[in-house]
Amino acid sequence: MISRYIFGTPLPTMAVIREIAPSGGEIPHFTVTKADGSVSFTTILGDDDLIFGLGENVRGINKRGHLYRAWNMDDFSHTENKGGIYSSHNLLLFSGEQGVFGAYFDDPGAVTFDLGYSDGGKAVITSENGNLSVYLIESTTLTGLVREFRHLIGRSYIPPKWAMGYIQSRWGYASEDDLDFIVSEHRKRHIPLDNVCMDIDYMEDFKDFTWNPVHFPDLKATNARMKDEHIHLVPIIDAGIKQLTGDPIYDEGVQKDYFVKKADGSLFVGAVWPGRACFPDFLREDVRQWFGAKYHKLMDTGIEGFWNDMNEPALFYSTDSLENAFETAEKMRHENLGIDGAFKLKDAFVNIANNAEDYRRFYHTVDGQPVRHDKVHNLYGAMMTKSAAEGFRSYNPDRRYLLFSRSSFIGAHRDGGVWQGDNSSWWSHLLLNLKMMPSLNMCGFLYTGADLGGFSCNTTEDLLLRWLALGVFTPLMRNHTAQHTRDQEIFRFRNWEDMRNVVSVRYALLPYLYSLLVKCACRDEMMFRPLAFDYPQDKTAIRVEDQLMLGDECMIAPVVEQNARGRHVYLPEDMLLVRFRSGDDYTVQTMQKGHHWLDVPMNEVPLFIRRGHVIPLCRSAEYVDALDTTKLSLVGWLEVGCAITLYEDDGESTDIDLNEGLQLINVSIDKGVATAKCAGKTIDASKVVVWER
Amino acid sequence: MISRYIFGTPLPTMAVIREIAPSGGEIPHFTVTKADGSVSFTTILGDDDLIFGLGENVRGINKRGHLYRAWNMDDFSHTENKGGIYSSHNLLLFSGEQGVFGAYFDDPGAVTFDLGYSDGGKAVITSENGNLSVYLIESTTLTGLVREFRHLIGRSYIPPKWAMGYIQSRWGYASEDDLDFIVSEHRKRHIPLDNVCMDIDYMEDFKDFTWNPVHFPDLKATNARMKDEHIHLVPIIDAGIKQLTGDPIYDEGVQKDYFVKKADGSLFVGAVWPGRACFPDFLREDVRQWFGAKYHKLMDTGIEGFWNDMNEPALFYSTDSLENAFETAEKMRHENLGIDGAFKLKDAFVNIANNAEDYRRFYHTVDGQPVRHDKVHNLYGAMMTKSAAEGFRSYNPDRRYLLFSRSSFIGAHRDGGVWQGDNSSWWSHLLLNLKMMPSLNMCGFLYTGADLGGFSCNTTEDLLLRWLALGVFTPLMRNHTAQHTRDQEIFRFRNWEDMRNVVSVRYALLPYLYSLLVKCACRDEMMFRPLAFDYPQDKTAIRVEDQLMLGDECMIAPVVEQNARGRHVYLPEDMLLVRFRSGDDYTVQTMQKGHHWLDVPMNEVPLFIRRGHVIPLCRSAEYVDALDTTKLSLVGWLEVGCAITLYEDDGESTDIDLNEGLQLINVSIDKGVATAKCAGKTIDASKVVVWER
Repeated sequence: MISRYIFGTPLPTMAVIREIAPSGGEIPHFTVTKADGSVSFTTILGDDDLIFGLGENVRGINKRGHLYRAWNMDDFSHTENKGGIYSSHNLLLFSGEQGVFGAYFDDPGAVTFDLGYSDGGKAVITSENGNLSVYLIESTTLTGLVREFRHLIGRSYIPPKWAMGYIQSRWGYASEDDLDFIVSEHRKRHIPLDNVCMDIDYMEDFKDFTWNPVHFPDLKATNARMKDEHIHLVPIIDAGIKQLTGDPIYDEGVQKDYFVKKADGSLFVGAVWPGRACFPDFLREDVRQWFGAKYHKLMDTGIEGFWNDMNEPALFYSTDSLENAFETAEKMRHENLGIDGAFKLKDAFVNIANNAEDYRRFYHTVDGQPVRHDKVHNLYGAMMTKSAAEGFRSYNPDRRYLLFSRSSFIGAHRDGGVWQGDNSSWWSHLLLNLKMMPSLNMCGFLYTGADLGGFSCNTTEDLLLRWLALGVFTPLMRNHTAQHTRDQEIFRFRNWEDMRNVVSVRYALLPYLYSLLVKCACRDEMMFRPLAFDYPQDKTAIRVEDQLMLGDECMIAPVVEQNARGRHVYLPEDMLLVRFRSGDDYTVQTMQKGHHWLDVPMNEVPLFIRRGHVIPLCRSAEYVDALDTTKLSLVGWLEVGCAITLYEDDGESTDIDLNEGLQLINVSIDKGVATAKCAGKTIDASKVVVWER
Repeated sequence: MISRYIFGTPLPTMAVIREIAPSGGEIPHFTVTKADGSVSFTTILGDDDLIFGLGENVRGINKRGHLYRAWNMDDFSHTENKGGIYSSHNLLLFSGEQGVFGAYFDDPGAVTFDLGYSDGGKAVITSENGNLSVYLIESTTLTGLVREFRHLIGRSYIPPKWAMGYIQSRWGYASEDDLDFIVSEHRKRHIPLDNVCMDIDYMEDFKDFTWNPVHFPDLKATNARMKDEHIHLVPIIDAGIKQLTGDPIYDEGVQKDYFVKKADGSLFVGAVWPGRACFPDFLREDVRQWFGAKYHKLMDTGIEGFWNDMNEPALFYSTDSLENAFETAEKMRHENLGIDGAFKLKDAFVNIANNAEDYRRFYHTVDGQPVRHDKVHNLYGAMMTKSAAEGFRSYNPDRRYLLFSRSSFIGAHRDGGVWQGDNSSWWSHLLLNLKMMPSLNMCGFLYTGADLGGFSCNTTEDLLLRWLALGVFTPLMRNHTAQHTRDQEIFRFRNWEDMRNVVSVRYALLPYLYSLLVKCACRDEMMFRPLAFDYPQDKTAIRVEDQLMLGDECMIAPVVEQNARGRHVYLPEDMLLVRFRSGDDYTVQTMQKGHHWLDVPMNEVPLFIRRGHVIPLCRSAEYVDALDTTKLSLVGWLEVGCAITLYEDDGESTDIDLNEGLQLINVSIDKGVATAKCAGKTIDASKVVVWER
């Protein structure tokens, strides 16, 4: 059950899709205090209480013990002291002495979450502007809370099936020659590949909806050739429009008054990749329609997927912040600079990027009224995503498109996926990738994953290999890295064959994972869950931070430590360990509930299947279209027969009907041997382990 | 056995104390290649080979898989991509297909260690200047390699016993009132405390060897009052001398030509805490003597301990780097700034600190010849430490003084300890603290530890509590934090009683830990060892990265994860688990070899004792002088009687004679009950677990 409490005058966020009448009473579980325009919500924490939520953020699955702040920010070097990263997902789920309950703080401005930081025994959530709706969520289980919340916010985005194929990306691919090289190196080594991202260098002078005419003389022909290779090109689109008189998009934006402006009515100018740029007011429906339609130009060449970037919005500097820094420098040059002065000077230049003051310099128009950006900051990326999604729907309402964004807010989960933002080639970010999966799933983001191998800094062959072994399970499986880092494509490494084999595991699992994603979207469920959700009474399970439940059938426990050859794993019940050496080569082993040390050689991907369950595998292939789902094999551990369902469709139509797409697979056991049947399919159940009492 | 190989013309480093005649032959295990003045040493790595060493550095105990660079650097935000931090300890120990061997690269300039980074199958060590001695170390065991190496580099610094008491520190204590408050808050709550650090604010205008006359009107009286409370004050000394004509130290330094200079003979001026400052040429013996004698002024007031800081040397800016940045700004202000330009501008100001070019701007005098700083950069902190230690010895050769430094080089281990440098309030830095202990021990640094609770960023009550539970075992046990962070003294927190009880465990263990440190110093052994050193045949033990052997008797396995209530632990043999709830309150439990899940409540400190061993505990106290070592109790797990030794002395004399100080404790078993005897002591052995087959 969800009840709604209104404080101040909330701005519209489009996060929720169901109208809930405001409740007149006091909000349960929280004490409300107001001060200086802000409003705070305090709840008492028992010593052993757990807190889940906050979607894309730093630290643990259990968010307790830190001070977070909802404020979308471009920060690839997100160490554990940060308050937040690219997205704001203001959902909290509490589990402990007060039972379970949840709260969604629907506020597009800054919100702080002091979750036992100032005082270990209290959680204090503060809306800095004091204008928000709080949705209080009640249920008897954590899973129930999520289902309630997800029902409130609407069905999650479902990507085309090919978007779950492997994606290769790099900031630096600049020409069709670069792309051809990447594709051919994968194909000739039989490394599966479905998609190649085009980062900013494909554009002409970093102008959105352009491409370099020299390096891409005929993008339509390029796309056609790629399609022959079963490759989708996925170009990037940035939030800022280059300020360039004579450029048709800029001119049109100015003429139609589509860009955000300062209080004096002048254009707000911030610098991003194209240099000085203006920012569409995505909070306006007419601006979203205008911008969304611009994607059609690329779609006309055959493009079917995009990633939206820089939409926190990131600002390298504004003309104002830069001018302030210059003035500081000029003034200080003629002073006898003390240490405080020197730090101030340095800060003046460091802080020209993503400057808090800049975010107070410009205005949106909401319901015809000007609203200062900082009041709605966290909405910007979500509204850009909405603009793109609306553009796609207007182009072809019947066809799914791939879309993932860096910045988001709850609500954007209906329109696209998110990658977990620019990260670093750190083992700690590999673990963070895992921890963010369930938190994002709670908030509706199912199509997600992190930059495998790490974006910033230089990866190593073992880091990429182990990270791929997690990426095998994440719907968005992209290897991506930054300019000036070492080459990070699989074929660059000594151990590329191991990496290829790891990717092939993804393809063997792809029908299962795709089915799971669609089911979870349609049923308001999570693909990835903390163990606490499935085993709330198990005092060990509830605090596990490096294993996840996957679907109803599986558990994953990747290796996240350099030089390790294994790890400890906790099994909250009996499970079958599947050791994949490739999609088509695996061995199984039954394991009992409890603590185990697990050897994990560098070339293996471990997967656990709960006793009493099976999952389907198909024969691996080099691209999604080549997967033959009429021939499946089952792996699992059964005592009695069972029935499982696999969702299938054409992978691209938008009229998804879960019930229509579910294929029933019946497994029966006879004399210790499993056999399976499914209409229209050949099912090999010979490898199912049959457990007899 | 150690052999020496000379390349180019090595500069003196004073790292080793034993003369080894250069070997004429080829260096075993390595292929040597030369290019552009550099020299590289390449060795082949088997897939499962391990690499230990590099002292104070980032990443694992096993250093394999990263690119490190010896280049002392002030960096509190040392994420895993960094190449090094405050100190350079160029020792590597290899263990694998080639057996075990070690190499010490005695080069005071930049050295890179590509340990399976570029190519997972190779380690390539490159001296950028090509002038160095390589000491090749051979033995049959890792422990043997360390003993050989430590014999080469000389006996480790032994602090006064009180220096192993708890130390409270904060950048911000500025007056005797501040110090009185800190001491009284500890004493009134019975939180043990022996030392309080005085960070830079005690000085007058950040000038070395001064104190603020208003806030410390009579430092001698303050010290006397503190001594009555059994507290030692430990002031900081920085490397740079304020450039201030009329200041006696600056004037003397200029007059006697003691500061480093630029090629044109002018003084090199860099800004540190006092603003513009000059840097003593610590590489010169006469300068070391001069600077070392300056400590006497503070010692005359009763000070008996110091910490040396900023001696990488850290540079906030140089007059040259600042002027360059200003010029860049002025030039760019009048350009139409592109994105590349904006980043360049920002970098110009960011890079004014610790700028590589600045380190090429000034010169030392070595053997009468000018040597550009970058050729000997990594020696600077070690030579400052040497200067201080020589100053102490000249003040009173019979008395030990406390000294720990931020920057160091091998050789400095004879003159003082090191703290692990400015860190951050990150759980990852708690784990890093653990990993650096054995690496530093290999290199001779026994008196070491990290800033408990974390220096930069805001700590949390659980982070400080868990970090103290590791700090209990580290010889240097200091709670320290930076300006503008939250209060971090134990008494500030809700759970201060748990924290106090954790510190009391330290005091119960202190006689054992002190004895262990002296034994390890005198016997060239490590206090903390990776499990690989003790169980080289155990394929699980050799890769454990979050447990350490402590002495011959113990193993530690602290909790290093937020919100955890336990952890997995691997026991390479049967051990007794001791759960300390305070120094005087503990329970024991026998545990079998193998993998275990260990519940670790927030208020417990777990310690493992190997079967067949006991350790002595004394009754906890509020300061070291109050520890009564005539009454000890033993804890451990025995089958038959045993004899153990405990080193004791007056805790402050410099004439340490290991054999003379060793007290023999004989434990006998009779009818399942242990009794113990030691001359002059009452020993309670009633809690020793007697194991009967």
